[in-house]
Amino acid sequence: MQGMTLPGRYFTDAEVFRAEMERFYFDRWICAGRAERIASRGDYFLREVNGESIIITRDAAASVRAFYNVCRHRGTRMCTVPEGAFAGRIVCPYHGWSYALNGALLGAPHMEGHALDYPLHQAHAQVWEGHIFIHLGAQAPPLTAQLDGLTEKFAAWRMHELRLHQRIVYDVRANWKLIVLNYNECLHCPFLHPALNRLTDYLGADNETPSPNYVGGCMGFRGGAQTMSTDGVRRRDYLPGLTEEERRMVAYFAIYPNLLLSLHPDYMMTHTLWPKAVDRTEIVCEWHFHPDEMAKPGFQASDAVEFWDTTNREDWAISEQAQAGISSRAYTPGPYSPREELLRAFDRMIVEREQNP
Amino acid sequence: MQGMTLPGRYFTDAEVFRAEMERFYFDRWICAGRAERIASRGDYFLREVNGESIIITRDAAASVRAFYNVCRHRGTRMCTVPEGAFAGRIVCPYHGWSYALNGALLGAPHMEGHALDYPLHQAHAQVWEGHIFIHLGAQAPPLTAQLDGLTEKFAAWRMHELRLHQRIVYDVRANWKLIVLNYNECLHCPFLHPALNRLTDYLGADNETPSPNYVGGCMGFRGGAQTMSTDGVRRRDYLPGLTEEERRMVAYFAIYPNLLLSLHPDYMMTHTLWPKAVDRTEIVCEWHFHPDEMAKPGFQASDAVEFWDTTNREDWAISEQAQAGISSRAYTPGPYSPREELLRAFDRMIVEREQNP
Amino acid sequence: MQGMTLPGRYFTDAEVFRAEMERFYFDRWICAGRAERIASRGDYFLREVNGESIIITRDAAASVRAFYNVCRHRGTRMCTVPEGAFAGRIVCPYHGWSYALNGALLGAPHMEGHALDYPLHQAHAQVWEGHIFIHLGAQAPPLTAQLDGLTEKFAAWRMHELRLHQRIVYDVRANWKLIVLNYNECLHCPFLHPALNRLTDYLGADNETPSPNYVGGCMGFRGGAQTMSTDGVRRRDYLPGLTEEERRMVAYFAIYPNLLLSLHPDYMMTHTLWPKAVDRTEIVCEWHFHPDEMAKPGFQASDAVEFWDTTNREDWAISEQAQAGISSRAYTPGPYSPREELLRAFDRMIVEREQNP
Repeated sequence: MQGMTLPGRYFTDAEVFRAEMERFYFDRWICAGRAERIASRGDYFLREVNGESIIITRDAAASVRAFYNVCRHRGTRMCTVPEGAFAGRIVCPYHGWSYALNGALLGAPHMEGHALDYPLHQAHAQVWEGHIFIHLGAQAPPLTAQLDGLTEKFAAWRMHELRLHQRIVYDVRANWKLIVLNYNECLHCPFLHPALNRLTDYLGADNETPSPNYVGGCMGFRGGAQTMSTDGVRRRDYLPGLTEEERRMVAYFAIYPNLLLSLHPDYMMTHTLWPKAVDRTEIVCEWHFHPDEMAKPGFQASDAVEFWDTTNREDWAISEQAQAGISSRAYTPGPYSPREELLRAFDRMIVEREQNP
Repeated sequence: MQGMTLPGRYFTDAEVFRAEMERFYFDRWICAGRAERIASRGDYFLREVNGESIIITRDAAASVRAFYNVCRHRGTRMCTVPEGAFAGRIVCPYHGWSYALNGALLGAPHMEGHALDYPLHQAHAQVWEGHIFIHLGAQAPPLTAQLDGLTEKFAAWRMHELRLHQRIVYDVRANWKLIVLNYNECLHCPFLHPALNRLTDYLGADNETPSPNYVGGCMGFRGGAQTMSTDGVRRRDYLPGLTEEERRMVAYFAIYPNLLLSLHPDYMMTHTLWPKAVDRTEIVCEWHFHPDEMAKPGFQASDAVEFWDTTNREDWAISEQAQAGISSRAYTPGPYSPREELLRAFDRMIVEREQNP
Repeated sequence: MQGMTLPGRYFTDAEVFRAEMERFYFDRWICAGRAERIASRGDYFLREVNGESIIITRDAAASVRAFYNVCRHRGTRMCTVPEGAFAGRIVCPYHGWSYALNGALLGAPHMEGHALDYPLHQAHAQVWEGHIFIHLGAQAPPLTAQLDGLTEKFAAWRMHELRLHQRIVYDVRANWKLIVLNYNECLHCPFLHPALNRLTDYLGADNETPSPNYVGGCMGFRGGAQTMSTDGVRRRDYLPGLTEEERRMVAYFAIYPNLLLSLHPDYMMTHTLWPKAVDRTEIVCEWHFHPDEMAKPGFQASDAVEFWDTTNREDWAISEQAQAGISSRAYTPGPYSPREELLRAFDRMIVEREQNP
C-alpha cells in the first residue's frame, strides 16, 4: 500500500498542536543545549519551551539542574537575562525570596513564623555526550531508554569533546514537523540545494531501519568532496577516533522530537526545534568543532557555516511554502514515493503517539 | 415599515464572517481581475481569496484556467511570485512535480510504478467583457446566470476593449459589506466628498430596481462637468459607442459580491473587494482606458486617478469609523432614510442568503 | 490560616478577564480623568474603556455628560480626535446627523416624515473633587456610596483646586490586578526602588482597615525628606489646608477599580488603569499641582515627575515579570506574608464579586 502524507489538521489545527506539545515537548526528553554553556557552578542559561521559561544551571555539586523560572512567592519570572551566572543563589528581584542552586528555598523575608516548603518547581535534567536533555513531565524514564542505541552509534565522534563555534537562530513560519520531514529526505536536493547536491549523491543515502525514537542514515561524498562546505574542501583535521569509513560520510539523524544531529568528518552541526505555534518554529543551529582545531592559529569555519546557513535558508523557505499550501482548503494527503520511507516512519510515530498517548 | 440597519454581529462576529465567505466568496462567481493580465499562453497571476492562493493562467488552448496553488505531492505552495509566465508547465520547486497548463500531472520523480491521478485542484474560470470571474465551489452555475442582464446593459462601453492604466491597493479596517453600503449611496457626498459633490447632484441618482445579483444606477453631471475628475474637465475622447445620454452620466453598479463597476464617459473604474477578516478588507482599485486614447502622445489620466484616489480614501476612512462604532456594545440598528433604499436591498440579499443557504 | 495568592486563571484566562471587565469596568463607577479637561461648555475628550470609545463633554447647562461615541443612524464612530471642543452640537461626519450636548437628536437629514427618537446612548457621569467618574451600566448607584467616606478623608488636600502639570501614558504587559497588587505593598521597595526607599521606611506604612471599595494607608518620610522627589527636597509650598501631620506623609489609596490616588504634601499623583486584555493594561499617570504654585516664576516639577516616572517603570517591569511567571504551567498560589494584608483584602474583594455578581 502506498504511503500518503498526513491530513492537513496535523499542520494547521491549534488543538492538535497543543496536544503534540504535551506529548512531545512536555512528556519527553528534549535537547536543550550544550553542557559547555554552564561550565561552572552557578552558570545558567534560559531556554523557552513553548512559552515556558526554564532555568538550566549547574548546582553546587556540579550537577545540571532545570527549574521553572517562577518564584514560589507570587509567581514572578525571576531571570530575564538569557544567560549568566548566579552568585551562589537564585534571588527573585521582586521581594527577595532566594533559592539554592538545587532549588531549595533559602530565604523568604517577612514570612514570620510560617513553615515554608516552597522549593523551585524542578524539571529533570541529564547530560548525554555533552548535550543537555531536559524532561518537563512529572515522571521521566531514563534518558538512555529514549536514546536507544545511539550512544554506541555515535561514540566515535566523541561529541562531548566538541565546542561551540557559532550559533544562528531562525524564526520559521512552518509547523515543526515540516522541518523534520524536510530533514529526512534529500530528494529535494537537486531542486533546492545546487551547492549541496554537488557534494553528495541525493539518491545515495544509506538509511537505517527507523526506530521509534529516531530516524536517520549516512551519505557518502562524491566528486572528491571531503566534507560539507562551500567547495567540499576540508580545512580542519578529521575528528579523532573516526574510522576510514566514518571519514567519508555524514551521519544525519533526527532524534525525536527536537534534535537534528549532523555529524561530519570534521565537525558536528546540531539543529534544535522550538515550536512557537502550529505554524511557527524557532530553530537553533549550532556548529561545533574539536577544541584542538579551534586552538590552532588561523582556525576558521566560515566554509561550513556559510554552506549550511545557505542550505538552511533554502530549507526554511520551502518549508514555509509547504505550510502555506497545506493550509489550503484544497490540500489533501498526497502520495509518498518509495524513497520517502523515513518520512512515513516519522508520520507513523506521530500518529501512533496520538492514538496511544 | 421603516428599514433598519443590520444587527452588529454581521459586522463583528468572526463566525458570521466565516459563513459569509463560504456563501459569497467560495460559492459564487467573483471577479478576479482582467483578462489582459494573462494575454499569452503561460502567463499567470496569483489571486488570494481569504487566505487561499489561486493561480490564474492561460492554457495551451488559450483558455483561462484557475488552480489552487497547492502541489498534489506534499501540498507545497508552488508559486510565490505574484505574476509572471510559466515555461509551458507548472513545476513545484520542492521535488519537481510538474503539471500542464490545464492542470494535468506531467511528471512526478521517483514515483516508480505507481499509477498517478493527481491533477491540480481546479476552480472554474470564465471571462465576461474582459473581466475574469472565478468560482471556487465544486459546482458552478453559468456565469451569465449570475450576471443577469448586465451584458446588454453595459454593452455600449465595450469593456473588453479597455486597458489598465493604474492600480492602487488599499488595506481597509472595515467589514467588506460596509464598503458596498458606502458605495451604494451618495447622501454622504456633501459631507465627505466636497470635490465630488461639485460634479454630480448627490440627490440625483437614477437607481434601478434592485436585482438579487446587483444594485446600481446612474448619476448625471452638473455645473458643466463632463466626467469625474479633479476639475470635471474631460481630457480624453468619449468611449466609442456611447449614446448622447450615456456620455452625460456615470453608471455605478455593485455586482455581488465583490465588483464595484463605475463606468464613466471616458474610462472605467473597478473596485474588487477581498475580505481578510471580519473587520478588514483589501480593495483593489483600477482605472481602465481605451487603448486608442492611451496610444496618443501626451495621454495622461492623473485627473481621474487622483480624483478617485482622494475620494476612495475619504470613503475608507469613514468606513473604518463605521466599523469601530458598530463594534460598540451600544450599537443598535438605526433607521435607514427613504433614500437609502439600495442599502436595504443589499442587506435583504445578505439576510436571505443567510437564511436560505 | 495563611493567605495565598490567587490561582493563575485570574491573570491569564480571557473569559475571567471578560467577566471582570463587565463587573468592574462596565458596572461600577470608574475614574475617567479630570474635570478641568472640559472647563467650558462643548469641550470634550475621548476615553477608551476596553475597546469602547466614550465622549466626555460639558453640556449647555455646564453639566458633565458621557456618551457612547456611536451615531444612532448607521453606527459610525463620530469623533476621532482625542480632545477638542464641539461647536454647540455633536455632528456625525458621515451623513450629518446632529445631537445636542445633552445627547438629544437635533437633526437627521432625509428622514422625511419619520418620528425620530434616537438620542445618543448615554452613560452616567459625576464629578468628585475634580475627578470625573463615569458609570457605563444601565443603573448606577450614587457615586458617593461607592466612594464611602473618602470625601472627608481627603478634604484637606482640596483636590478640586489642583491642576494638571504632566501626563505620561504607559503600555504595560500585565493584568490590571497585578498593578493594583504592586501598588498595595512596599515590601518590594528595598529591592526595586533604591531611590524611593531612601525617602520612606518600607515597613512604616500605616494601613487602614480595608474597605470593600478601597484600600490604602499613609507613609511618613525619613531621613529629612519632605516629599517624594529625586532628592527628597520639596521645591513647592505645602498644599494649603494640610495639618502638620499631613505635611509629613504621603497617602496612597487604591480606589477600586481603577484609580490609584497618591497625595503628597505638595502635589497629587493619579494613576488610572485601563485594561486592554487579560495581560495588558494602559496606565495613565498624571501629576497635579496647586495653581498658585504653577503660576510662580520658575515653577518646575521635574523632580517629582522624574522620580515617579523612574519608579513607575520599575514597577511596570516587575509586574510584567509577574505576569510572565504566573502564566507558567508551573505556577501555583504562593503564601502572602503578614505584611501583604492589603493584597489579601483586594483578592478577597475580587473573589467575592465573582461569586456574588
